[in-house]
Amino acid sequence: MNKIVQCVPNISEGKDLDKINYIIEPLKNQDGFKLISAEPDKDYNRTVITLLGDPEKMIIPLINFFQRALDKIDMRTHHGEHPRMGAVDVTPFIPISNITIEECVEYAKSLADHVSYMYQIPVFLYAKAATNPSRINLPDIRKGEFEGMKEKIQDPLWKPDYGKPMIHETFGVTAIGARIPLIAYNIDLSTADEKIASTIAKAIRASSGGFQHIQAGPAFLEEKGFVQVTMNILDFKKNPIYRILETVRMEAKRYHVEVKNSEVVGLIPKDALLDSIKYYQQVLGIPFDKNMSIEDITRFSIEYLQIRDFDSLKIIEANL
Amino acid sequence: MNKIVQCVPNISEGKDLDKINYIIEPLKNQDGFKLISAEPDKDYNRTVITLLGDPEKMIIPLINFFQRALDKIDMRTHHGEHPRMGAVDVTPFIPISNITIEECVEYAKSLADHVSYMYQIPVFLYAKAATNPSRINLPDIRKGEFEGMKEKIQDPLWKPDYGKPMIHETFGVTAIGARIPLIAYNIDLSTADEKIASTIAKAIRASSGGFQHIQAGPAFLEEKGFVQVTMNILDFKKNPIYRILETVRMEAKRYHVEVKNSEVVGLIPKDALLDSIKYYQQVLGIPFDKNMSIEDITRFSIEYLQIRDFDSLKIIEANL
Repeated sequence: MNKIVQCVPNISEGKDLDKINYIIEPLKNQDGFKLISAEPDKDYNRTVITLLGDPEKMIIPLINFFQRALDKIDMRTHHGEHPRMGAVDVTPFIPISNITIEECVEYAKSLADHVSYMYQIPVFLYAKAATNPSRINLPDIRKGEFEGMKEKIQDPLWKPDYGKPMIHETFGVTAIGARIPLIAYNIDLSTADEKIASTIAKAIRASSGGFQHIQAGPAFLEEKGFVQVTMNILDFKKNPIYRILETVRMEAKRYHVEVKNSEVVGLIPKDALLDSIKYYQQVLGIPFDKNMSIEDITRFSIEYLQIRDFDSLKIIEANL
Repeated sequence: MNKIVQCVPNISEGKDLDKINYIIEPLKNQDGFKLISAEPDKDYNRTVITLLGDPEKMIIPLINFFQRALDKIDMRTHHGEHPRMGAVDVTPFIPISNITIEECVEYAKSLADHVSYMYQIPVFLYAKAATNPSRINLPDIRKGEFEGMKEKIQDPLWKPDYGKPMIHETFGVTAIGARIPLIAYNIDLSTADEKIASTIAKAIRASSGGFQHIQAGPAFLEEKGFVQVTMNILDFKKNPIYRILETVRMEAKRYHVEVKNSEVVGLIPKDALLDSIKYYQQVLGIPFDKNMSIEDITRFSIEYLQIRDFDSLKIIEANL
């Protein structure tokens, strides 16, 4: 069986579509992996690129992609809403199937070694690839951004994992790492009262004592006229979707508020949905088939988790 | 309004009732606080003593109690199942009403200062009174126990907070601190399958990614013929009882197992019950009265939380 990872490089260019297309060219029509999407954001002045497939096959195209970003992006003149420290700002490898997180760390190191050696770009390993605890969280590495990195990188505490302790003049620095897939998941409530969404978010999120792999907050959807509990599920094995959804439903009851729908932003691994379908089918006494088709996974997810605006292509494995 | 704390000294003697009675004598019939219980355990060779009342009034009797423990307990000949490092092993101050945790830390320091000065007993401040992060958890301080402490205390990292870096020859060392009240809470399941209790415990406990202030595991009650999810709730404000109970109920559903009852071991603060009564009354649309009587709190707790073998005297405030 093929090793499958999701790889999501972010580049510091979100406005000039010609430039973006030139930079991502080496990632198109390659053997062994697919370019799923490139989503530029003008306000952020940043593009999020999603690759899916065999990491072995991604390394050389990614090296070429780094070279093109180096050629076309000058961080000295870059402005945008999103914090950033390099032309390619961050590149995570995310295990999807037939691959461990440890193997993803090795691919991250291999890419880091090549780009630092070939282009004199200093690289910080982050997340599961981090070489010390202060480098696990990307925002800690990125603090000070491109402008502050010239000085920060000379601090022995911030010596890069690859390359010399000096920034690349136009490229800056980059972070490469491995992390488990996170799910961007939102739950719609039958109220416009943001306080209720905020109180419920506090009940479930790690930073207020709730589930350890949940980041959550309130959001008011002005056009739709209701609030959401908006969240990242950082580890869906330990904090499965159904558990979060049912806890939110239980908390909402005290306000006589209902869960209207839920929403998955971006891609979601098949297993995250299967784990929750299994819960509901066990409760309902329906035999659970872990080999069900992508179509069935899609249908049951919509039925049990009340996911709106959902289709099979939102499931990572449907894109393979 | 009087300041009320719970103070729970543990002594390393659980067999000789005459000795125990002699040691706790200074804590009996005192003005301003009550000796609620002294629970000796033969296997542990340890007695847990519970005081409730004004901490100001406890200090001098506690000093006398330390002196009597020093006179009667020789750690060089002490054996028991429970880890221990001193004749009085640990003394936590726990805020109950009209007092902050910071004030409890001050009472802990005052007691520590006196016993180290008067009896040459080295004292480690722990939990909220800890002077550095490695001393927050009691097991970290106690590691090596009485026998290993002679050497450990000479390590600069384990210099005691009060007294010289050498153990008292017969008493050993002691930990004094302040912590918020914890609730020992168990949930009975309608099954004898310990695996189910174990899986549910993992879903809710911090160490497996669940709620951050929950320690939980499975237990099979042989005489009763069913299993429990047994737990400590370390912060009932952040992880209220109802949320844990309802999450356990939701998880149990997939096994077609029901929550039969729940159980509070030891004392429980009134507010922990009120927080949960409020949830159920909001769900039911019943007006909630935060000033309800202890009798009403008892009645509603039994009704909503299905607590068995419960009476008003299990509520801390009913003992004041």
